[in-house]
Amino acid sequence: MTATSFHPPQRILMGPGPSDVNPRVLEALSRPTIGHLDPMFVALMDDVKSLLQDSFLTKNKLTMPISAPGSAGMETCFVNLVEPGDTVVVCQNGVFGARMKENVERCGATAVMVQDDWGKPVDPNKLEEALKANPDASIVAFVHAETSTGAISDAEALVKIAHDHDCLTIVDAVTSLAGSELRVDDWNIDAIYSGTQKCLSCTPGISPVSFSEAAIEKIQNRKTTVQSWFMDLNLVMGYWGEGAQRSYHHTAPINALYGFHESLVILQEEGLENSWARHAVNHEALKAGIEAMGLGFFVDEAYRLPQLNAVTLPEGIDEAAVRSELLNRYNLEIGAGLGPMAGKIWRIGLMGHASSQQNVLTCLGALDSVLTNMNAKIDSGKAVSAAMAAFS
Amino acid sequence: MTATSFHPPQRILMGPGPSDVNPRVLEALSRPTIGHLDPMFVALMDDVKSLLQDSFLTKNKLTMPISAPGSAGMETCFVNLVEPGDTVVVCQNGVFGARMKENVERCGATAVMVQDDWGKPVDPNKLEEALKANPDASIVAFVHAETSTGAISDAEALVKIAHDHDCLTIVDAVTSLAGSELRVDDWNIDAIYSGTQKCLSCTPGISPVSFSEAAIEKIQNRKTTVQSWFMDLNLVMGYWGEGAQRSYHHTAPINALYGFHESLVILQEEGLENSWARHAVNHEALKAGIEAMGLGFFVDEAYRLPQLNAVTLPEGIDEAAVRSELLNRYNLEIGAGLGPMAGKIWRIGLMGHASSQQNVLTCLGALDSVLTNMNAKIDSGKAVSAAMAAFS
Repeated sequence: MTATSFHPPQRILMGPGPSDVNPRVLEALSRPTIGHLDPMFVALMDDVKSLLQDSFLTKNKLTMPISAPGSAGMETCFVNLVEPGDTVVVCQNGVFGARMKENVERCGATAVMVQDDWGKPVDPNKLEEALKANPDASIVAFVHAETSTGAISDAEALVKIAHDHDCLTIVDAVTSLAGSELRVDDWNIDAIYSGTQKCLSCTPGISPVSFSEAAIEKIQNRKTTVQSWFMDLNLVMGYWGEGAQRSYHHTAPINALYGFHESLVILQEEGLENSWARHAVNHEALKAGIEAMGLGFFVDEAYRLPQLNAVTLPEGIDEAAVRSELLNRYNLEIGAGLGPMAGKIWRIGLMGHASSQQNVLTCLGALDSVLTNMNAKIDSGKAVSAAMAAFS
Repeated sequence: MTATSFHPPQRILMGPGPSDVNPRVLEALSRPTIGHLDPMFVALMDDVKSLLQDSFLTKNKLTMPISAPGSAGMETCFVNLVEPGDTVVVCQNGVFGARMKENVERCGATAVMVQDDWGKPVDPNKLEEALKANPDASIVAFVHAETSTGAISDAEALVKIAHDHDCLTIVDAVTSLAGSELRVDDWNIDAIYSGTQKCLSCTPGISPVSFSEAAIEKIQNRKTTVQSWFMDLNLVMGYWGEGAQRSYHHTAPINALYGFHESLVILQEEGLENSWARHAVNHEALKAGIEAMGLGFFVDEAYRLPQLNAVTLPEGIDEAAVRSELLNRYNLEIGAGLGPMAGKIWRIGLMGHASSQQNVLTCLGALDSVLTNMNAKIDSGKAVSAAMAAFS
C-alpha cells in the first residue's frame, strides 16, 4: 500500500477522554528531541516531579509519570503493592473497579469485591463491613471518579476506614486529577494513579503516579519480585530518583514529557483550585442546558462529577446516530455508555481545556439541533439560552 | 516552585538512541488530537499496521505498536509467550540479553543462558548445544542487534536452529529495524519487538511488535492467564484487531502514533532497502574517519552494526569529559559504554534521520577537535577528509 501523511480533522473532544488538548501542549510536543540522559532532560524530569507533586497536593518523593497510559499506571500500583496470596478489597461501582479486580487476580491475590450500583458512590459502610469480614486484607482499592458513570466517591472517608483496618490504599484518580478536589497528603492516600488525557489538557500516553512513604516501605520489603520488569518501581525509582546519578531503566518518551510538562505549567498558572472551580462552573451551565432540553442526569447531584456528565437519552432515540451526526456535522465528539451503560447514556466530558464556556454552548447548540432534526422528544431551542443564563 | 515552559536545545543525537527525529515527525506530533475511537483514528491504526508489516517484511496479522517504550514491547513478548514452569533459552552477548533473563524469571520460568563474549555475535553452535542439553525448552530468545556493543547476530540461522528443536523465537530488533537487513517472514521469526527512537527517526515511547500464527496459537492456548493486564495480547488484539468492531482496552497515545505513522510513511518513501543501504554508506565514511584518527572499533568488521559504532578510546583519556565537551560546545550527543563497557568505549549512533553525511562529518570534526585540544593520542586533522574521500 502507499500511505501518505495523516492530517486529522479539528475535533471538539467532549467525550470521556481524550479531551481537548491545550494548543501550547501540542506545540511543546514538537520541540527538538534531546537525549534521555541529557542534563537538560534530567532537569526537566525534576521540574515534572515537582509540578506533579503540586497538582496531587503531596510531598511524596515517589511522584512521577509512568511512561505509558493510565492502564499501565493502574497496573504499576497493583504489581508493586500486591503480592501472591494477599487479600485486596476492591470497591466497584463501574467499569474500572472490574479492571482493578483483574489486576489483583493477575498478581496471584484474592479480590474481595464491595459492590455498589453503577452511578452511585462507593458506600463507606459496605467497605467497613468487608474489612471486618476480611481481617487479613492488606489493601483497599477504589476509583475516586468513575469515568464510566460520572460518580465521585468520598476518597477521604474510604481511606480513613482502610487505615483503621491497617490497609494501604490504591486510588484511581484518572478522571479526578485537576477536575475535582483531590488532596493526596491531607487524605493520606498511599498509592494513586491518573491519566494525562482528562483534566490535565494533555495528550494521552502518560500516567502520573504517587506513592506514600508507607507504600514505598511495603514495596521495598516485598517477599517476592515484582512480576513486571517494566513497572518495577524498585528499578523505576533508580531512573526517576534524586540528583544526577540516575540509572538507565528505559528510554523515556521525551517529547510526550515535553507536552506533559507544559500541561503542568499551564495548570500551575491557572491554579489548582481555580481549575476545580472552572470545571464546576462549566458543569452548572451544561446542566442548565441539558435540563432545559428536558433531559436528565444518570447520577444524583450530590455525587455527580462536573467533568464527566452521564446524560440520559430522549425516549426512542438512536443514540449512536446522534453521536455520528454530532461528529460528522459539528466535529463534536461525545461519548457512548460503556459496558452495561451502552445505549443508556451519553457521556459528555468537560475536562481540562475542553471545560470552557465556548464548548458548553457549542455542545448544547449542536445537540439541540441534531435532536430536533431527528424529532426527538425534547424541549427544543431552550438549551443554549439556559446555559447563557447560568453563566451570567 | 514556579516553572516555565521548557525549551530544549537543538542537539545532534548520535548516541545509542534516541536518535535525531525527522522534522516531519515532530510536526506530526503537534497535529490536533482526535478520539481513540474516532473513525478517522481507526483508519490511521489500519494504516500503521500495514506500514509496519512492510517495514518488518511480514504479513503477520498481529503486527502493531505497543503503547509504551521498547522495554514494554520486550515484556509483551515474554509475558504472552512464556508460562510458569517453561524453559527458555536466552542467548546473551550484551546488556539486553540480561534483561531478557529478568523477564523470563519474572514469568515464573527458567532461563537457560547461552553466553557469548560482549562484542561477539551469538554463536549458533552454542545455541544448538544448549537446545540438545535442554530438550524441554520451548522458546529461544536473542537480540538481533546488541545496542550495548554494536554487534549483529545471524537471526536467520538462530531461528532455524530453534525451530529444529521445536522452539518458538523471541527476537529483539530494537536497533536493527530499518537499519539492518531484517526479514521477519523469510526468517520465520515468531515474536519480534523494536523501538521507534533508533532507525525509524521517530521519538521514543512506542514499541512495534509482530507475532506469527504459531505465536498467536500459543498465546490463545495458554494454560494460565497472562500476568499483565496492560500487555495481555488477548485483550490488545481486540483493540488493534480487524475492522470497526474494536473493543476498548486502553487509550492509545494518539499524537505519538501520528508521529510514528509519519516515520513509517517516510520509510516507505525512502524504501526499506535504501534505508539499510544508507546506514551502511554512512558507517563506511565514519569508519574511514575513525580509523584515520587512529582509533578502532570494539566489534570485528564481520558482525559490526553500521548504525551503532562502538569506538575504542584513545589511551588515558577522560571519556566523560570528551562527551561533555561535545555536548556543550557542539550540541552533539554520543553515548557512553553501558554496564561492563562503561569507560571502555563510546557508542556513536548513525541511526535513522541521524544517519546522514552531514552528521558523519560534524561528528568526526568535533571529535577530532575536542580530542586534539585535550592532547589525546590521535592522528589529528585527518578524520574529516578521510570520510569525505569515502563518500566520494
